[in-house]
Amino acid sequence: MGTVTGAGPAAGPKQARSRVTRRHLLEAAVSCLAEHGWAGSTVAVVAERAGVSRGAAQHHFPTREKLFTAAVEHVAEERSTALRELFHAGPAPRTAVVEALVDLYTGTLFRAALQLWVAASNEEQLRPHVSGLEARVGRETHRIAVELLGADESVPGVRETVQGLLDMARGLGLANVLSDDTARRARVVTQWAAILDAALGP
Amino acid sequence: MGTVTGAGPAAGPKQARSRVTRRHLLEAAVSCLAEHGWAGSTVAVVAERAGVSRGAAQHHFPTREKLFTAAVEHVAEERSTALRELFHAGPAPRTAVVEALVDLYTGTLFRAALQLWVAASNEEQLRPHVSGLEARVGRETHRIAVELLGADESVPGVRETVQGLLDMARGLGLANVLSDDTARRARVVTQWAAILDAALGP
Repeated sequence: MGTVTGAGPAAGPKQARSRVTRRHLLEAAVSCLAEHGWAGSTVAVVAERAGVSRGAAQHHFPTREKLFTAAVEHVAEERSTALRELFHAGPAPRTAVVEALVDLYTGTLFRAALQLWVAASNEEQLRPHVSGLEARVGRETHRIAVELLGADESVPGVRETVQGLLDMARGLGLANVLSDDTARRARVVTQWAAILDAALGP
Repeated sequence: MGTVTGAGPAAGPKQARSRVTRRHLLEAAVSCLAEHGWAGSTVAVVAERAGVSRGAAQHHFPTREKLFTAAVEHVAEERSTALRELFHAGPAPRTAVVEALVDLYTGTLFRAALQLWVAASNEEQLRPHVSGLEARVGRETHRIAVELLGADESVPGVRETVQGLLDMARGLGLANVLSDDTARRARVVTQWAAILDAALGP
């Protein structure tokens, strides 16, 4: 899912620098959003955090909406890639897969996405950007979940089973925003991984 | 779970008026939060919406944090009461109970609570209020779920099964914030109600 085009190993040093700047901006934007929320997140704040001039930031991302939406998408793609690589070696126990899927919804990326999501519910201007982002990231996460769980979606109900699991993961993420919910979450995940395993069959 | 004391039927007209004012403020606060988010929700805006003077609003709720936390708690209590009454007649099919539980996380109350929740993650001052609220409402919702599902929590794993269901309900609520997710949600709920029914046993 390349967001960077024409900047492969064959590109010149200028493109390489531009790519690095872009990545710094995206990473700074996600941290900023997670820490300060949408109201406290502007292009200027992110540029400063990334050590990039405001002009350079605006060259990469002409609007605030584009910067933050691209940032959440970039980090989501990185986490998807990492998740695929984690289970690259072959079939894994479903409990381990469920744990890894739930982990997608804890931490900085989820906090940042949540801030954007909630802000978009009150801001007309932001909404189409976030709706599109949500749809793309949601589809990709569903694909990965089906693949790693070895779920056969041609069986009636299996698609909804996987969807419900991801909804639960999102709800567990929300429960972790205000307080460290790690211990409770581990118990819920153990229980529901077993229920899911039985529901999906061999 | 009376939040109003000394204002029963025996109280005088002054107390009755005060109680009505209080309720109008709480309801206006929840609508305001759901529509405009935390940044757009002040005591003054809510007082105007409720048709109450700012002084009267501050008499009832000395701080912004207290007004909005009390508002979400008040509406949550009303919804809990309504849910208990809905199933007052006797045992109901588990699918109907799961649907009703999931419904707690769609609509204005959930939107308002979500705004408060996310704002609290960035605002030190708000956090203790919302953490306490979350714990109280969470415990009450869990109690209702156990009761209505006829779940036996002395059986190992049953507590976590019910918790996971409520996490899923919360995640489904989140999926409904930016777009109308009713159709997908209905399919997920049907599937998971059946899985839950099998997991809980008779």
